[in-house]
Amino acid sequence: MVRVCVSQIELDIENSDQNVAYANQAISKAAKDGADLVVLPELVNSGYVFRNIDELDARATTLDGPLIRSWIEIAVDTGITVVSGLALRIKETFYNASVVIDKTGLLGWYGKVHLFGDEVKYFTAGNTKPLIVETCFGKIATMVCYDIEFPEWSRIAMLEGAQLVALPTNWPVLIENIPAVPLEVIKTQANASMNKLVVAAADRTGTERGQAWFGASHITDFDGNLLVHAARDFSGPIQNLIANVQLPKDTKIAISNDVRKDRKPHLYRELIKEVR
Amino acid sequence: MVRVCVSQIELDIENSDQNVAYANQAISKAAKDGADLVVLPELVNSGYVFRNIDELDARATTLDGPLIRSWIEIAVDTGITVVSGLALRIKETFYNASVVIDKTGLLGWYGKVHLFGDEVKYFTAGNTKPLIVETCFGKIATMVCYDIEFPEWSRIAMLEGAQLVALPTNWPVLIENIPAVPLEVIKTQANASMNKLVVAAADRTGTERGQAWFGASHITDFDGNLLVHAARDFSGPIQNLIANVQLPKDTKIAISNDVRKDRKPHLYRELIKEVR
Repeated sequence: MVRVCVSQIELDIENSDQNVAYANQAISKAAKDGADLVVLPELVNSGYVFRNIDELDARATTLDGPLIRSWIEIAVDTGITVVSGLALRIKETFYNASVVIDKTGLLGWYGKVHLFGDEVKYFTAGNTKPLIVETCFGKIATMVCYDIEFPEWSRIAMLEGAQLVALPTNWPVLIENIPAVPLEVIKTQANASMNKLVVAAADRTGTERGQAWFGASHITDFDGNLLVHAARDFSGPIQNLIANVQLPKDTKIAISNDVRKDRKPHLYRELIKEVR
Repeated sequence: MVRVCVSQIELDIENSDQNVAYANQAISKAAKDGADLVVLPELVNSGYVFRNIDELDARATTLDGPLIRSWIEIAVDTGITVVSGLALRIKETFYNASVVIDKTGLLGWYGKVHLFGDEVKYFTAGNTKPLIVETCFGKIATMVCYDIEFPEWSRIAMLEGAQLVALPTNWPVLIENIPAVPLEVIKTQANASMNKLVVAAADRTGTERGQAWFGASHITDFDGNLLVHAARDFSGPIQNLIANVQLPKDTKIAISNDVRKDRKPHLYRELIKEVR
């Protein structure tokens, strides 16, 4: 069993020091609670609702900056593996990124490929497949928020052997009536189930410049069932949700069925055609 | 608005005349209730739990047989479009098929590509993409049951312009505790949402040779919300569920987002590689 924590954090683009403090507290608490893996939301070092590129410029971190260094220190001290979304600067380019860190250091970074809304004004889209890394407890993939609404992305994670998808996310509320289980959650459940993958999704809270968020953090098992999900009436700035999860050993779902082997790739060629 | 009906029918492999009678009653009732489209379960002319190939041989129908002729007659008389699963014989090959029929006749047939469990002992897998046809109310796709757990299939339906997926299904209960919303339903909701497609899924009831079924027929809107779903405590042999649905006019989901145009096909090449 792997002990997985998703940390739902209140973020505020006007207070990035507080955002980082909350993230660090959440990671430390997860480590104290014995988590092997902690997943944090998208853009934890900045917040989401930028007014201009200067705001991003002031908040973005670098791979060798103090933020990632401090997370490596926590990982070295406690053995925890950290996946977090953050505003990342690589040379003069900004990515809406996810990083994976363990006691051996930075295992890799991924730039969100499928950008949502105004993100295109600020971030460069990544141009690689989901990041997949070996950790001491299993093979994990990471992607960011809207990426998971592209079923191709979880599929590729499964095909490359991932057992768990760590999903930093910021799910904006764009509808009037919030259902008990938002479609964002239903989509991760389906991706988990269709690919026999665990999904650990860390969402945010904190109304930001008028934008509310679902706060729909959750962890699924590899059948797609919800093991834990955030209560909507929680009011603190940090909500750590923990589940002990079994990672899949294979992609079999029944005696004679397997979500990988039952595919018919020769019939899927249309998926790689460019849109006219 | 299109008036869509999914007919949930009690099937029994030991009484195929009754199966066909129920199917015909369900179609007629849907037409009387003003449905533009009625979707029936998988294998309505046979049932599912075959003991040997002779049972399939005795129940399978042909494209020019009396069953499809009778449905064409109802379609001509009432204007309804019919999608149904059935055991189909083409020359000496059996398919777990879906047919689309309207007042102009048989619009096409599709053989289930992704076979589940023992189906491989009886049926030949189809070798084509989902069937997509123009009807008088819109462009619809059809696939069968387990097919929809392959997200590639709904994706291709969307890429080819389908607005609605008609899904004949037989969802066996293979777990102990039945959740309020089975994962089978969650997966169609997600496929609807990720592709901006309406899904109309017709499941079956009737314990057959010890096998129970979810009876989880439902219709989603193109955001993936459930418009109607079968009550688990309904006891009759026919349960017609009707919803007036709006078909999508495009694949836009937000001011600057589109589930089709936001895809990055050049990064999806792994999806067409054969499994080693």
